[in-house]
Amino acid sequence: MELKSYLTARGKLIDQALDRFLPRASVKPRTIHKAMRYSLFAGGKRLRPALTLAAAEACDGEVARALPAACAVECIHTYSLIHDDLPCMDDDDLRRGRPTSHKVFGEGVAVLAGDALLTIAFEILAQAKETSRYKMPALIGELAGASGSQWLIGGQVADLEGEGKKISGAELKYIHRCKTAALLTASIRLGGMSANASPARLKNLTEFGQSLGLAFQVIDDILDVTQTTEKLGKTAGKDVAATKATYPAIFGLERSREEAHRLTLAAHAALKPFGKSGATLRAFADYLLVRDY
Amino acid sequence: MELKSYLTARGKLIDQALDRFLPRASVKPRTIHKAMRYSLFAGGKRLRPALTLAAAEACDGEVARALPAACAVECIHTYSLIHDDLPCMDDDDLRRGRPTSHKVFGEGVAVLAGDALLTIAFEILAQAKETSRYKMPALIGELAGASGSQWLIGGQVADLEGEGKKISGAELKYIHRCKTAALLTASIRLGGMSANASPARLKNLTEFGQSLGLAFQVIDDILDVTQTTEKLGKTAGKDVAATKATYPAIFGLERSREEAHRLTLAAHAALKPFGKSGATLRAFADYLLVRDY
Repeated sequence: MELKSYLTARGKLIDQALDRFLPRASVKPRTIHKAMRYSLFAGGKRLRPALTLAAAEACDGEVARALPAACAVECIHTYSLIHDDLPCMDDDDLRRGRPTSHKVFGEGVAVLAGDALLTIAFEILAQAKETSRYKMPALIGELAGASGSQWLIGGQVADLEGEGKKISGAELKYIHRCKTAALLTASIRLGGMSANASPARLKNLTEFGQSLGLAFQVIDDILDVTQTTEKLGKTAGKDVAATKATYPAIFGLERSREEAHRLTLAAHAALKPFGKSGATLRAFADYLLVRDY
Repeated sequence: MELKSYLTARGKLIDQALDRFLPRASVKPRTIHKAMRYSLFAGGKRLRPALTLAAAEACDGEVARALPAACAVECIHTYSLIHDDLPCMDDDDLRRGRPTSHKVFGEGVAVLAGDALLTIAFEILAQAKETSRYKMPALIGELAGASGSQWLIGGQVADLEGEGKKISGAELKYIHRCKTAALLTASIRLGGMSANASPARLKNLTEFGQSLGLAFQVIDDILDVTQTTEKLGKTAGKDVAATKATYPAIFGLERSREEAHRLTLAAHAALKPFGKSGATLRAFADYLLVRDY
């Protein structure tokens, strides 16, 4: 599969850049830098930063110019996983097939490792090059907005508050938009911004990201009920155990699969204006639909 | 006392600006915005943001231009208090005379409120105006560096790891420099940067901040053993109970007071080049030395 080789090649660039941006594990105090690297280099799929690079390429941008934004997005994603896995949140012991941060380093250091990754995300993004259309305040605002109290963090709050309650389909979609679609969309938009994308192209990318992000979460919910813990690298059936609302729980598996399919088509439609340049982004949408972990 | 009226007047400006920058408590999801505001408007002394404004004024800058940096610094300070107070860290129930965030909102929301304040700090700072000498990457880098894994967060890690152990005076000073002096120094430097301070003046401000920051923490340690919980608004004797190393514990009260005095004089010396313009900053140093909470 073509996208697999794209992910492998770009994943290597992303890993190298992250390694350069992060303090060595030998820097004092070592514990925090070990903990940051433990979660950041845990074999994540690098989907978000790869989307940043792919969006930049779709807009005829250079990969190198998009790397700071790509790395910043991955740091935000990783911090959010560390904090979400804490005992006071989703209380999970397993992530990407390995013990979660607080299991290895203790809760205190896990909180701080998340804080440090969140902080360094902005330090890394500040090293991005501005373009004629997108200056630093727009870049920082994009990432801070998507990760902030009204989106990524807001979604986690709504998720926590919804546990054990019967929530509506509309409320579930709101949580998905906040928790997953917002950061995915920002990842893609930041790629476009690094390539100085026209406002029209940025709008296309936004629509693509929103559909892709929702599709991603619907599929995640489906995988949680249909796959094994071993396959997922995180505890399967977790959402059901926590009596969390999921797409299959509210709409059933069949309608959930239909919805994922519909959203994937919507993502494709948003890419039409890109023509051939949108091929990699299109492949992402297809890949997410058929993924099994 | 003159500085008291300065703090009152500037504190009002800072509170108004923070209120503008923060989402209303009615914005969805309400819990997170309530929690952010609960800790941010808890009657803190606003020392750090006031120092940002005073440093800007010492460099003939405008207060209004320094306000975004001042507010960003206060958001960072407040997030660090919320996370430090968590059960998995210092486990404190009282802060600024009120129950800590996790006591009111639960641990999960407290972690997220800290995350959200950390995130919004950069969003606010991105709204600062650049000057000819100091562009946005320098401003973001300044705040992210001081709050990151090698300073503010690093100090908290070293502090956690030192609990119950016998640590040296050198190690204690390292923790103080990280946990307290770094963010105080950045607060002051960001004020100078907002006023387009010359490199020489910025160096003076840095030296001032480092001395002031260490003095601040030595005095904090002294107050922890000499004052009541009621007076401090946070649990007194906490450091001793946690068998944390403190200045008085290692060097004795007498030598600690001498050190605070010596550091205050060093702070004064760093301000010499400012002449009359340094009066407010000088008053800060004197105020910290004689404060009793």
